[in-house]
Amino acid sequence: MKVVITGGGGMLGFKLAKALLARGHLSGADGKNAAITRVTLLDTAFPAILPQDSRLETISGDISAPGVMAKVVTPDTQSIFHLASVVSAGAEADFDLGWKVNLDGARALLELARRCARPPRLVFSSSVAAFGGDLPEVLDDSTTPNPQTSYGAQKVCCEYLVTDYTRKGFIDGRSLRLPTIVVRPGKPNLAASSFASGVLREPLNGVISECPVSLDTDVWLLSPGRCVESFIHAHETPSSLWGMSRVLNLPGITVPVSEMINAMRRVAGEAAASRVVYKPDERIQKIVAGWPVKFRTPRALGMGFKADPDVDSVIRAYLADEGIKPAA
Amino acid sequence: MKVVITGGGGMLGFKLAKALLARGHLSGADGKNAAITRVTLLDTAFPAILPQDSRLETISGDISAPGVMAKVVTPDTQSIFHLASVVSAGAEADFDLGWKVNLDGARALLELARRCARPPRLVFSSSVAAFGGDLPEVLDDSTTPNPQTSYGAQKVCCEYLVTDYTRKGFIDGRSLRLPTIVVRPGKPNLAASSFASGVLREPLNGVISECPVSLDTDVWLLSPGRCVESFIHAHETPSSLWGMSRVLNLPGITVPVSEMINAMRRVAGEAAASRVVYKPDERIQKIVAGWPVKFRTPRALGMGFKADPDVDSVIRAYLADEGIKPAA
Repeated sequence: MKVVITGGGGMLGFKLAKALLARGHLSGADGKNAAITRVTLLDTAFPAILPQDSRLETISGDISAPGVMAKVVTPDTQSIFHLASVVSAGAEADFDLGWKVNLDGARALLELARRCARPPRLVFSSSVAAFGGDLPEVLDDSTTPNPQTSYGAQKVCCEYLVTDYTRKGFIDGRSLRLPTIVVRPGKPNLAASSFASGVLREPLNGVISECPVSLDTDVWLLSPGRCVESFIHAHETPSSLWGMSRVLNLPGITVPVSEMINAMRRVAGEAAASRVVYKPDERIQKIVAGWPVKFRTPRALGMGFKADPDVDSVIRAYLADEGIKPAA
Repeated sequence: MKVVITGGGGMLGFKLAKALLARGHLSGADGKNAAITRVTLLDTAFPAILPQDSRLETISGDISAPGVMAKVVTPDTQSIFHLASVVSAGAEADFDLGWKVNLDGARALLELARRCARPPRLVFSSSVAAFGGDLPEVLDDSTTPNPQTSYGAQKVCCEYLVTDYTRKGFIDGRSLRLPTIVVRPGKPNLAASSFASGVLREPLNGVISECPVSLDTDVWLLSPGRCVESFIHAHETPSSLWGMSRVLNLPGITVPVSEMINAMRRVAGEAAASRVVYKPDERIQKIVAGWPVKFRTPRALGMGFKADPDVDSVIRAYLADEGIKPAA
């Protein structure tokens, strides 16, 4: 089976690639568990060190450049994970770029997918940025998307495209709305959500973290590892389980910042927990206040998707993944 | 004020044009009631007889042809009614054409609107074809679109585009989801919804109508006249009334076919009513069974939108519009 991962150089895409290579097999549209013969990653940049694996192929380029995409999604492609996108802050800062990459790029991908020898299975990475405006206290599978960012609007339009291409039998698609991914490895960035990982990551790495939001701020979170498992599970669930509804809110856990810090104290000791400094930023607090943080996800749970058991295990997974031994 | 109507040669667009010319003024984004100085209609075809009015301009062309659109939406445009689209059956029969005209055409329009001297007010004609799949008994403002046609998916994507362009301040947009329009003048066509007008129109014109669905089949309907009033009302409502939610299910009435025939008997006599012949068509009955027919529309009613009072008045309006005197 030939697998394509767009955004394969990004944190989640690359982690997914490694998981698939380690796994060696994947069940797809024909219901058979097939050996993975090729994993093709498309992205504008890749990690410096790539696994030495003859099945791995990396192609540099932009998903909105048609010539590039045709090299990636070839007629023998049976499996596509579409993760590539301009991120939320980027799409908000550059309106034209956001719609070009996030919508037109997805359409170019779907058009190539439609021309595969057999309709490929496709997992699309959507986001809870789909939700906004006047929100209920607890969101569920019936909550109507009303995004308040271009990124969110682009994700929702792509969900409808994936559903329509699926209905027509061109692909076998499913879209997952991802919670905030915590702990993201790497550096803090300018995204308003940066604090959600930063409040854990920097202290665990021995660095002071300035938390811009109050300690009772809730985050709807999912660990990178559990997210990758969800991508693979979404790929392997049979079409009949999805029926006419091809979009799913993934399970997550609602954790206040105070509980993140308490968990860090339990897992990594007081020294780590004490590295969080509260430095209020009204602008960020206001943005974050508009985000959905409580969900009921009965459909996803019934389909076998799983949230992290607790934030302690999220922290332990991060430490294990990064090879960090906290001085507890 | 310069007003643009895409799909201005169509039944609703042309009726809207005549209503605006007769009215002579329109309130727009600046809240002022301004004289209408120009009404520009874009369509691929127009009625043979056009009103002799120096304010009226017709431009022939396709909304997905960029050169044409630039002639229509000029920098001085302050008002746009976007009604043009490939119809439901057409978009289902030609997938590529549907997405090209209904999505790309709308984007081209929005891009030109964004370049107007001032953000124009824009009314987008969406549809209850947005709804499908597993539907509740009664739909309301919180029901999530899950279209089961490409046409419906294209309408929903356009709604999200209109909302995002509005949020960014490029336009002042609002989308109306239209019920089934009854009575459509003209000829029966191949659309599954053709019976909804045909069960009244042909008998009122002295012709036998073959009704393909059972008499207890409900229709969620709105008259052409009330629909045009809704377009104008949507244009004139201030931005503050819409807030962060720019999409509205228009009020309609739920009428079983049997009640349409009873009303026809009351308004036009037994002779008309007796011209309906039940000729079951399982294919059409099955398609129609998936359509939403009962709605609660508290938001629209609260904003001053109005349904037809009853199907009797819908029939009377049709007779008056078409100058028909039934032999009752």
